Amino acid sequence: MPLATPSTIAGQLANGNAQTFHAKSEGINGTNNGVTSGSSIIQEILARRATAGRLVAGIAAASDSDMFKGSTVGKPKARKWDSHLSREVLERKPCTLKQAARHLKKPGLISLGGGLPSSETFPFAEIAMKVPVAPHFSEQETLEKGQTVTIGKYDVRDHEAVYDLSIALNYGQSTGSAQMVRFLTEHTEIVCNPPYADWQICQTIGSTGALEQALRMFCDKDRNDSVLTEDFSFSTALETIHPLGINVFGSPIDDEGLVPEAMDQILTNWDAASRGARKPHILYTVPSGQNPTGATQGYERRKAIYAIAQKHDVFIIEDEPYYFLQMQPYTGRGQLDVPPPASVEDFVSSLIPTFVSMDVDGRVLRMDSVSKVLVPGSRLGWVVGSEQIIERYQRHAEVASQGPSGFSQVILYKLLDETWGHEGYLQWLMNLRMQYTRRRDALLAACEDHLPQDIVAWTPPAAGMFLWLKVDYSKHPHASTKTLAEVEQEIFDSCIDGGVLVARGSWFLAEKEKPMPGLFFRATYAAASAENMNEAIRRFGQAVRESFGKK
Amino acid sequence: MPLATPSTIAGQLANGNAQTFHAKSEGINGTNNGVTSGSSIIQEILARRATAGRLVAGIAAASDSDMFKGSTVGKPKARKWDSHLSREVLERKPCTLKQAARHLKKPGLISLGGGLPSSETFPFAEIAMKVPVAPHFSEQETLEKGQTVTIGKYDVRDHEAVYDLSIALNYGQSTGSAQMVRFLTEHTEIVCNPPYADWQICQTIGSTGALEQALRMFCDKDRNDSVLTEDFSFSTALETIHPLGINVFGSPIDDEGLVPEAMDQILTNWDAASRGARKPHILYTVPSGQNPTGATQGYERRKAIYAIAQKHDVFIIEDEPYYFLQMQPYTGRGQLDVPPPASVEDFVSSLIPTFVSMDVDGRVLRMDSVSKVLVPGSRLGWVVGSEQIIERYQRHAEVASQGPSGFSQVILYKLLDETWGHEGYLQWLMNLRMQYTRRRDALLAACEDHLPQDIVAWTPPAAGMFLWLKVDYSKHPHASTKTLAEVEQEIFDSCIDGGVLVARGSWFLAEKEKPMPGLFFRATYAAASAENMNEAIRRFGQAVRESFGKK
Repeated sequence: MPLATPSTIAGQLANGNAQTFHAKSEGINGTNNGVTSGSSIIQEILARRATAGRLVAGIAAASDSDMFKGSTVGKPKARKWDSHLSREVLERKPCTLKQAARHLKKPGLISLGGGLPSSETFPFAEIAMKVPVAPHFSEQETLEKGQTVTIGKYDVRDHEAVYDLSIALNYGQSTGSAQMVRFLTEHTEIVCNPPYADWQICQTIGSTGALEQALRMFCDKDRNDSVLTEDFSFSTALETIHPLGINVFGSPIDDEGLVPEAMDQILTNWDAASRGARKPHILYTVPSGQNPTGATQGYERRKAIYAIAQKHDVFIIEDEPYYFLQMQPYTGRGQLDVPPPASVEDFVSSLIPTFVSMDVDGRVLRMDSVSKVLVPGSRLGWVVGSEQIIERYQRHAEVASQGPSGFSQVILYKLLDETWGHEGYLQWLMNLRMQYTRRRDALLAACEDHLPQDIVAWTPPAAGMFLWLKVDYSKHPHASTKTLAEVEQEIFDSCIDGGVLVARGSWFLAEKEKPMPGLFFRATYAAASAENMNEAIRRFGQAVRESFGKK
Repeated sequence: MPLATPSTIAGQLANGNAQTFHAKSEGINGTNNGVTSGSSIIQEILARRATAGRLVAGIAAASDSDMFKGSTVGKPKARKWDSHLSREVLERKPCTLKQAARHLKKPGLISLGGGLPSSETFPFAEIAMKVPVAPHFSEQETLEKGQTVTIGKYDVRDHEAVYDLSIALNYGQSTGSAQMVRFLTEHTEIVCNPPYADWQICQTIGSTGALEQALRMFCDKDRNDSVLTEDFSFSTALETIHPLGINVFGSPIDDEGLVPEAMDQILTNWDAASRGARKPHILYTVPSGQNPTGATQGYERRKAIYAIAQKHDVFIIEDEPYYFLQMQPYTGRGQLDVPPPASVEDFVSSLIPTFVSMDVDGRVLRMDSVSKVLVPGSRLGWVVGSEQIIERYQRHAEVASQGPSGFSQVILYKLLDETWGHEGYLQWLMNLRMQYTRRRDALLAACEDHLPQDIVAWTPPAAGMFLWLKVDYSKHPHASTKTLAEVEQEIFDSCIDGGVLVARGSWFLAEKEKPMPGLFFRATYAAASAENMNEAIRRFGQAVRESFGKK
């Protein structure tokens, strides 16, 4: 059993060392003096770091976003959410052993309190990695001129570094390391800049785990709780909710995702008795590149949804793995491409504001992750929310995940903070945007070439990994005798026979007992080559044609 | 939101490649032909690997222990535990998207089904690490003659390797990678060799997370469930149980931990009405080096406890982080040390059998972890249990942790499997045993030197990290006027004033509302230097003396 014992908080976070440490302070070229996004904020952050001095954060040092944030003067505090929280989460108490750690601050104190191993026994003297230098991100460029970054066991002690293996590989806090909390707090400022004062971040083991924790925090089957989500929603999320004894209800969607008016109607006319559940007090939504529909809520749409959430006092779980997979506008085949963002500032400005960036109440828990933009295998993400919500999240994580892997944290820290810095990371994300734009366009070209457009329709996705293919069931020659589910099965089987796997719309239906609102298939452009996507869509088109009795 | 989509199971596990891959088959010197432990099993495992050929397991390949186990002929199957499981876990269904992945086996199929990123976009070309070569494990030896092990992105494709970054850093199964499942299955065979046929292992994110999952699998507050544990138990475990609405009951302990007769009495005389909870159907126990008491259940004791569990149909959660911190017998100060084990076979034979190794029913879930023996920061452990229990665990992990970090897995795989092999890893553990023996002996010497032995008593721990100091409250001059809790507080405060932190016994009390059975403090020998331990215990002794009015 891993221990959370006093000396696991033996480190201290202080600015006691006057020497500044800002490996990335060179090479930042702000292009604009605006105060809301991009390089100007990066410059502000670098200046703040320079003033603060070297970050000193030892083994399992406690940290929070307030240590690293800019000024929040003039911003209101978030609301309290006791009424929305579950009995389970309200009953959590801080870890006794971690509480005892406050005594470790006493000078000269020797701790026999904590059961954490001596770093001396760790069998890793050094870890090195070869990574790309911004903005030369391709595999080829990495091989040719990538940088080798090394992480020693005692770099903090011996080389005045900020983070090393002796810290990363020991026990840590459930928030994750101070080093990564700093980077992610700053990144959140750059990208989201929440409009209330007491926001915090906490690292997670990825958004799958974060969602499970969030659901246990907000949902109580003894209260007959329920969750509202898109009509078609991420199947794994649905499978997370059901065993908790919580009901899920789908809200209608269009090409921009959730329809605010429909959501308002559902909530306004809620009848707990006929629904068999309390009116939803939680909305689970994927605003950008929704899974499975690929829909992206525009800014006006998000504002409208947020207003409905306020009206009905609904708390929003914003799941945003695809946020940085917002792509260039689709101009159509053979048309001139929209030029890529000219700078990271342009890039950040081009992104649709997040729910948390318009969250005046603190009613949003944003789940973010590096899985779609760096590596899924890191099992590292973070949540952004109000102090109260993040504190409760942390209490839960203390007896569950204990935060992400130290290997993941130190490797990502060295890449993101010390090698790339905020500017370099945003360049990486811009580069990824262009890659996904090319991938999407290749899939769309294949669809235009191979699909019968009188039967199959789609909207070019603005973000994410998925294209949602709508098949017009009403045109099926056996629509009067075969159910929609039967036709879905027939086309799916025929796809497998023909050598293509796509996901079936019914897998994502929020309310399985309700009639299916249409015939859908989900295709991804994330993984296959352009050539394979072309062939796969040709096969899918053939399966549809066969089912519909077309040559 | 990380996706668990069809192509995340794009890899296959097959023995199609005739070329064998056994970097560690040299250098293994079995010393004995016995069939039950140590090198002979290692040789059997190596022979099995040679026959199977190179392990081929791609991105998110499914795997289980049956693929890697030796013969289980003649072993019975485990019992089914539906009656013990919670409604929540019984309602879990396999992940839809992972189920769809069975189609990926079809030759020539192109998948547009899965939302997993292309490895091409991962910004890590190579990771290298400097690690000790067995049996030269010290930090100095590692620096001087350690080995540099590299992990490339496409080692499997380009160099016929077994594991690489393109696999480890993408999505995986909730069991963790096949590569590590193989190593851990074999390790479990060497160390535990469960006596039933259908045992399995599943990787975890460490035992804290594994315990939380296990509790949700077995405990149902709607059923008024309760958990039995040691009178003094790991405080974080208690803090994990309480918010679930589950009651905890303590069972009396002695120097060898749980007293079977007392446990039997409690269960035999259980009165649900007066207890306010159903008779416990779960035992949570730390058999080796228990936290906080440091007690280790001997073999006979374990057999007796197992028999009581059978009698009352109790399922056992065996939490064994300190199993390999079983130390040399304590011979007393200035006495000749017991010679270290002569071979890994001797070493394995010297270990007290685990509950799972005597588990004829499959009524044990063993939680293991590398936190205490390699690095806590890996957040990597594993559970051992029956097929039914592990399958349910996996279903839960699919919508929660999704398994441990890929960085942790690939780094540990390269160290444990390819660099050290089973023999080398056991040598590492032997070396650790000797280190902990020296640490324990230093703390015991300090106690002998500085503690008033008419007031403070202790039993030299046989395993783990903790010494449990029993202070004789009855000899306190104000025993008639001050409560035990008050004296505990007084001594603790005086310790802090004097500059030493020890853990208070009351923090670990399983039933907080019951009177404290004595005055205890927990001290660890894991972290501080011998010199600091000496000084710390001197300070502790002074605090006790002051409270007891002794000079």
